[in-house]
Amino acid sequence: MPDARIGVVGATGAVGTVTLGLLAQRGYTRVRAFASERSAGGHVPFGAGELLVEEATPEALAAGDLELALFSVGTSASRELVPHAVRGGAVAVDKSAAYRLEPGVPLVVPEVNGERAHEHEGIVANPNCCTIPLTCVLKPLHDAAGLRSLRVSTYQSVSGAGARRMEALLAEPQAEHDLTMDWTWDGDETDEESKLRSETRKIMELTELPISATTVRVPVLVGHAEAVWAEFEEPLSPEQATELLRAAPSVRVVDVPSPKQAAQTDDVLVGRIRPDRAGENGLALFLACDNLNKGAALNAIQIAELLLARQRVAA
Amino acid sequence: MPDARIGVVGATGAVGTVTLGLLAQRGYTRVRAFASERSAGGHVPFGAGELLVEEATPEALAAGDLELALFSVGTSASRELVPHAVRGGAVAVDKSAAYRLEPGVPLVVPEVNGERAHEHEGIVANPNCCTIPLTCVLKPLHDAAGLRSLRVSTYQSVSGAGARRMEALLAEPQAEHDLTMDWTWDGDETDEESKLRSETRKIMELTELPISATTVRVPVLVGHAEAVWAEFEEPLSPEQATELLRAAPSVRVVDVPSPKQAAQTDDVLVGRIRPDRAGENGLALFLACDNLNKGAALNAIQIAELLLARQRVAA
Repeated sequence: MPDARIGVVGATGAVGTVTLGLLAQRGYTRVRAFASERSAGGHVPFGAGELLVEEATPEALAAGDLELALFSVGTSASRELVPHAVRGGAVAVDKSAAYRLEPGVPLVVPEVNGERAHEHEGIVANPNCCTIPLTCVLKPLHDAAGLRSLRVSTYQSVSGAGARRMEALLAEPQAEHDLTMDWTWDGDETDEESKLRSETRKIMELTELPISATTVRVPVLVGHAEAVWAEFEEPLSPEQATELLRAAPSVRVVDVPSPKQAAQTDDVLVGRIRPDRAGENGLALFLACDNLNKGAALNAIQIAELLLARQRVAA
Repeated sequence: MPDARIGVVGATGAVGTVTLGLLAQRGYTRVRAFASERSAGGHVPFGAGELLVEEATPEALAAGDLELALFSVGTSASRELVPHAVRGGAVAVDKSAAYRLEPGVPLVVPEVNGERAHEHEGIVANPNCCTIPLTCVLKPLHDAAGLRSLRVSTYQSVSGAGARRMEALLAEPQAEHDLTMDWTWDGDETDEESKLRSETRKIMELTELPISATTVRVPVLVGHAEAVWAEFEEPLSPEQATELLRAAPSVRVVDVPSPKQAAQTDDVLVGRIRPDRAGENGLALFLACDNLNKGAALNAIQIAELLLARQRVAA
């Protein structure tokens, strides 16, 4: 697969930069970098070398020489550009919220519902950076005991809001740092909270699962954490849950997960697994994940590799 | 009451500094500052002037010339010194965890259970900095609908760990900032989590209330926040809860509370009041409070003023 023709769209952003790093590390050699007009003409690092940044125009993306297009751009840019890449014959793996809930668009976390990736009609959606680690942890627990309800509060790093917000945090005096809820509002929730609910339901195929989330941005550069309370149909002890999570793909059980510990690792760290003293058949736990890596770029590449493996077998 | 003879023990610490500021602001004139041997002999600001820092020896505290002693020292120092102040005739208002759960020691949030302050035998305990704002918010909701269970995740600033941790945060490069759980462990919980449960139960006089807490330190200088899910016996709409909280003492309803917004204010900020979509008769909400002020120093002074008012009426 290292000869797959892959386009990275949004190559100069926080997620795009990590995507290029992972592709180079995995030995891909036919990678092209696309970005907005502002960044086009420059270069981005790629392995030991660099790539010319091409402008992400509808024409360039539709030209027909990409097998896969990994999009890490904003929702409106994805809405505009993704259809052109698909028209050109590429399968688009899109990180934005543009297509995640559309019927016919698989929303995929490979460890949770990887088989769904193959049901695409040109687009596979990459979930929200909080939903990916959450479903990696919940899947084995749900399979064992049946998830009944979910409460989640998040501790999200500023890199989730993009490279410019990272620079702003670095420039801001420490005494000014605050918690924020810097999302748009969707009724009485942030759109991040409603995404977390609707995406978790779609990925877990639990369309009615009761979920309440509180999403909070914290002054940490990279790495998202989540405090989770999950109630189950059947009793599930912390010991049983720990065993299941030790065996789960892409999950690593640690004592006390933290964003810094998770940063630049591929795993979802989970710990603090204990009974939920406020509910029946419940567990409380804490998780952390590199939001740019498994929470975004790595998950997209894993989706891409599922698709490539199937295409190559079929070809 | 401005002529009350008040000793502030731990006068050079984060909470002690705020305590002196509040006492000066309220017009108290007979205030003495005590600290450990290391700080004794120096001076601390007090209003427009300053106070000599006296060494907090058993003899000095027992000498009999204090009506009230406000302790903001560590738990072991409180265990050692508080009894001497009481022996000397002072009522001790103690911020440490040393006496909070002892029978015969009232644990008081004036807005919640102020009457209990008068049942003391020399010591009144000042609750944990997360418990104070939490009970201020829960009390009116419990009175209306009957609290049935509670889940809380915290976002606690480093000032809760003392002045030296604040300096360390200011000196640490931004990229190093992390979330931590820098407490001691009490079984499968931090002692902060078990304190939050046992203190909330004692203050609310709900000895069996199911409570699950996850306590997290965030790289913010001042101000604690909490994401709360509360279930009630009776239905309670967000609108009803908002009305109750608007009328509650020391509580201010805002759209999105944040630590920075709460810092240096006297109020507990509460917002994001919405249905708990994961439970029956439940509400989700978010609160923020200045952990050094209402979360510590101000609450102690309010307790002191309850006691002084009663003493003066009785005298």
